Amino acid sequence: MDDRLQRERYERGHDPTRVLTLSDGVFAIVITLLVLEIHVPDLAQGQTLRDALREVRPSFIAFLISFVVVAIAWAGHRDLFALIRRTSRALVWLNILYLLPLSILPFGASLIARYDEESVALEMYGILLVAIEVTRLAMWWYATGRPHLLVAPVSARFRWAGVVIAAVPALAYALAFILAADAPTASLVIYGTVPILYFIVITIARTTAPSGSAEQDLT
Amino acid sequence: MDDRLQRERYERGHDPTRVLTLSDGVFAIVITLLVLEIHVPDLAQGQTLRDALREVRPSFIAFLISFVVVAIAWAGHRDLFALIRRTSRALVWLNILYLLPLSILPFGASLIARYDEESVALEMYGILLVAIEVTRLAMWWYATGRPHLLVAPVSARFRWAGVVIAAVPALAYALAFILAADAPTASLVIYGTVPILYFIVITIARTTAPSGSAEQDLT
Amino acid sequence: MDDRLQRERYERGHDPTRVLTLSDGVFAIVITLLVLEIHVPDLAQGQTLRDALREVRPSFIAFLISFVVVAIAWAGHRDLFALIRRTSRALVWLNILYLLPLSILPFGASLIARYDEESVALEMYGILLVAIEVTRLAMWWYATGRPHLLVAPVSARFRWAGVVIAAVPALAYALAFILAADAPTASLVIYGTVPILYFIVITIARTTAPSGSAEQDLT
Amino acid sequence: MDDRLQRERYERGHDPTRVLTLSDGVFAIVITLLVLEIHVPDLAQGQTLRDALREVRPSFIAFLISFVVVAIAWAGHRDLFALIRRTSRALVWLNILYLLPLSILPFGASLIARYDEESVALEMYGILLVAIEVTRLAMWWYATGRPHLLVAPVSARFRWAGVVIAAVPALAYALAFILAADAPTASLVIYGTVPILYFIVITIARTTAPSGSAEQDLT
Repeated sequence: MDDRLQRERYERGHDPTRVLTLSDGVFAIVITLLVLEIHVPDLAQGQTLRDALREVRPSFIAFLISFVVVAIAWAGHRDLFALIRRTSRALVWLNILYLLPLSILPFGASLIARYDEESVALEMYGILLVAIEVTRLAMWWYATGRPHLLVAPVSARFRWAGVVIAAVPALAYALAFILAADAPTASLVIYGTVPILYFIVITIARTTAPSGSAEQDLT
Repeated sequence: MDDRLQRERYERGHDPTRVLTLSDGVFAIVITLLVLEIHVPDLAQGQTLRDALREVRPSFIAFLISFVVVAIAWAGHRDLFALIRRTSRALVWLNILYLLPLSILPFGASLIARYDEESVALEMYGILLVAIEVTRLAMWWYATGRPHLLVAPVSARFRWAGVVIAAVPALAYALAFILAADAPTASLVIYGTVPILYFIVITIARTTAPSGSAEQDLT
Repeated sequence: MDDRLQRERYERGHDPTRVLTLSDGVFAIVITLLVLEIHVPDLAQGQTLRDALREVRPSFIAFLISFVVVAIAWAGHRDLFALIRRTSRALVWLNILYLLPLSILPFGASLIARYDEESVALEMYGILLVAIEVTRLAMWWYATGRPHLLVAPVSARFRWAGVVIAAVPALAYALAFILAADAPTASLVIYGTVPILYFIVITIARTTAPSGSAEQDLT
Repeated sequence: MDDRLQRERYERGHDPTRVLTLSDGVFAIVITLLVLEIHVPDLAQGQTLRDALREVRPSFIAFLISFVVVAIAWAGHRDLFALIRRTSRALVWLNILYLLPLSILPFGASLIARYDEESVALEMYGILLVAIEVTRLAMWWYATGRPHLLVAPVSARFRWAGVVIAAVPALAYALAFILAADAPTASLVIYGTVPILYFIVITIARTTAPSGSAEQDLT
């Protein structure tokens, strides 16, 4: 087998395309399955639909929070893979590990929708969110440290910016997990506000970065 | 890092491909999930299946209306992104905002299927449809005004044609929302007939446009 | 705007890529949703799981028949779009019309799974299958008669082969529909055996075609 | 029709792209549907949510095992199609045959989740897993033996490595199937541990292979 063919086989074997197709499929399904957890209410005796829909409100909030979590996970995944030219066995499996808590998220969302004041529900939701951030961090650290997988080497500053972007929500979610037993409302508030924190962190990373640097392409 | 690599990194970071993969995934899932809201009926004592299926009819009509809404949303999204060469942070998030009411549509459809004469159900469905059109309008206005995101600059006439195409249904749906409390049937009729109006508006935009202009490629 | 840009805009506006992404998404979802209609049985007093699973058998047969129907629809869609270089407004909407009965198929499958001897269930399933074949035929006839949409013009012989391939199942399904009221079993047998007929028709089309002709690429 | 066009038509007719889009769609849906089998528990009188969640544990284990099964199936499919340049009618249908047991897996998973000590549930799950491995083996054997479908011919050693990688789990799952009636626990343990065995087999295939060989690209 000549060199050109061997090279082509190598590149095809490490091509990220299908990793992205699978991941985008999972992202799209998870984001749309979430709404299946909002059930059209049955009306109790003498109850109006307006009242019944008011009772569905916790489902709706759980849906909205989870929708934003998945959207952020997708945007971060896209930012990371914009840097990646080749995959490796470890990266493929890290990516699958990342999809695991994401695919459990609809279960977690319907758990907090139904039992929004139960600490164990809030804890399980927190575990899922921490797991999403930690696996994201692992993929980022793994990939950005391996130039042969990248389109272009990344600066140390950019690498650490990526760490902060995943670590700040991870810590916040861990706090929410710890608070779940004693202060369920505080825990829920954290789940709802971390996305805002996330946008602020990214905006800071973009505006403080030198002109033309990779930070400015973060979503 | 040399210029070529920096350029490549920039283009990859603003490539619309994954925005389309995610969006098409959501479109495909929403359009097929809609049918899950049509339940195979249980037969009551002495009831024939033919009678039971007759009772499922409102579900069917809600399904058909929503199917057409999603199809139109997809076709409009495709027309818009045919013009777009690069994304930006704002466009990515506008797109996610656009996917939000779309992903809630199956819930709205099953709400009007079950409570087709309840004003609150018709109002919620109306809010979803208005939100789809308004976010569509926002994406269109944002993107067509930024030449660096486009394959080629668009004419002012074309830009306004796109506004009309999204604004006419938005206004009709807003009217249906307002009528929901007092005239639920009129409201439902509007939901069912706006797509026809939409096709007429596009056909006019295509036929009145000068030969070779972008309007003629609208779907 | 120079000619090259105008040409690029035209080609992007008629590019079939997203039509395929949406369609493949719908095919993939429909084919996997079908299995959701098979419910894990509850055990009645003194019943073994083996007995309970035996009662699930009609669901299983409905699943298998529908799985093959979707697979054939996908393979035919792939064969058609292998010929197509550009889309048009009409082709895009014909394609959406084709996805409509496909997306209702899971409902039809669960209807015949539950009421496998009811003529109205068998009739509705038949209507869906006829609609799939008829819209397929419409797309085929429309596209193959418009050389500017095609990679290369197709021979009249090939065009008619495609008509036969869609029309033979359509006629068989129409027969099953007509028989549903008087001979439900015959109707069900036809639904189960048309795929075999389909494979035979394609094999004949492939083997009788001159060497190197397009018929030999049919799936 | 000139030669270039005929060649282009031939290549388009045998292009694997849509086979991958459909398959990745099915993989993504199956992997995310699995979690729908984990139901948010209702609380019985005096029961805490923590207790109720403990009862959901079998669902969770069934979910995790099935998640890994689908992930491995996807990774193996990706490794195979990295070698494939063209499809054939037989390969397309073999691929659909491969997707069949995969799409039934959510049903199998919810069966063992609910009846985890019933031999018939364990047997049905075993049949699905054996079917996944056997169809995988068939695709591998078929494709790797047809150089005109491949990017580059594969060595006999590599071809046999692929056979072992699919046959070892197939045999283990067949053993679990046989044991299901007499030793359900042993059967369940095998389902849970085969993935570990699988990773070991791949690692051996990678490390014992000569440098630069195709085995080193296995995932």
